[in-house]
Amino acid sequence: MEKQLEEYLHQHIPLSQSMGIRVEHASTHKVILFAPLANNINHKKTVFGGSLHAVATLACWSLLYLNLEEKSDEKFQIVITKSEVSYDAPVDTDFRVECLTPENITWERFMKMLTSKGKARIKLSAYIYHKDRLSVNYQAEFAALRSCLGQDSN
Amino acid sequence: MEKQLEEYLHQHIPLSQSMGIRVEHASTHKVILFAPLANNINHKKTVFGGSLHAVATLACWSLLYLNLEEKSDEKFQIVITKSEVSYDAPVDTDFRVECLTPENITWERFMKMLTSKGKARIKLSAYIYHKDRLSVNYQAEFAALRSCLGQDSN
Repeated sequence: MEKQLEEYLHQHIPLSQSMGIRVEHASTHKVILFAPLANNINHKKTVFGGSLHAVATLACWSLLYLNLEEKSDEKFQIVITKSEVSYDAPVDTDFRVECLTPENITWERFMKMLTSKGKARIKLSAYIYHKDRLSVNYQAEFAALRSCLGQDSN
Repeated sequence: MEKQLEEYLHQHIPLSQSMGIRVEHASTHKVILFAPLANNINHKKTVFGGSLHAVATLACWSLLYLNLEEKSDEKFQIVITKSEVSYDAPVDTDFRVECLTPENITWERFMKMLTSKGKARIKLSAYIYHKDRLSVNYQAEFAALRSCLGQDSN
């Protein structure tokens, strides 16, 4: 599943290729994306904050995408609606972003609303650990919309 | 000043070149960055949310950088500490991000704290308008640190 997701991201979101993103783990439970420092470096030789946020966004988007592919026969569009990030420490090496599936109860509520209303929102989190500490704490809200509603995704 | 800033961004933050960023306006009062859809497109043919956030981050960083260069003889490092974004509508064309200098009183407090303590935080905003409506509302907190404190920037 990793190779398929990586090809999809590189093909459809070319910036993911510029960022050198590799999919290290892709399942409905967890997504781990890797990105090298070199492609994402800033003037301080640390990772540019925009890259940290972008890789986290792709990790969460991917987790939601994989779950919707598996748990529903319908097609949905995924839209990011809000994000909130705390940059607690700089990252000065290659890095990994991990996004875990939320609790079952959260997921069930989301799927129930999505099935009945054709639109639902869910909060997802992603984390970047660096030198054994949490460096980036990313929270975002995504909306899924039944494709016939015809809205576009970010 | 536009050309200088653009060269600085492209040279030190290579992802800004991958995103095709151009500096349209650069002063201590306002920074406007332009980015093309093509470099930042996603699977829905709209601008990837990570790109919207990244260009807004660079606009705010640039405004703070230009102000510190003009208003102080000291050298400071600029660190993003938090960001909060609301994606209110998709962007499906080339786009511009605008960051305006905050009110004088905010700026004066920031500079006073920075001069006395060697470290201060400031909130900056950036906006992306598309088809006459606000599509992206970006708020972030940046910290400036006197360079001898030796901390790195995101």
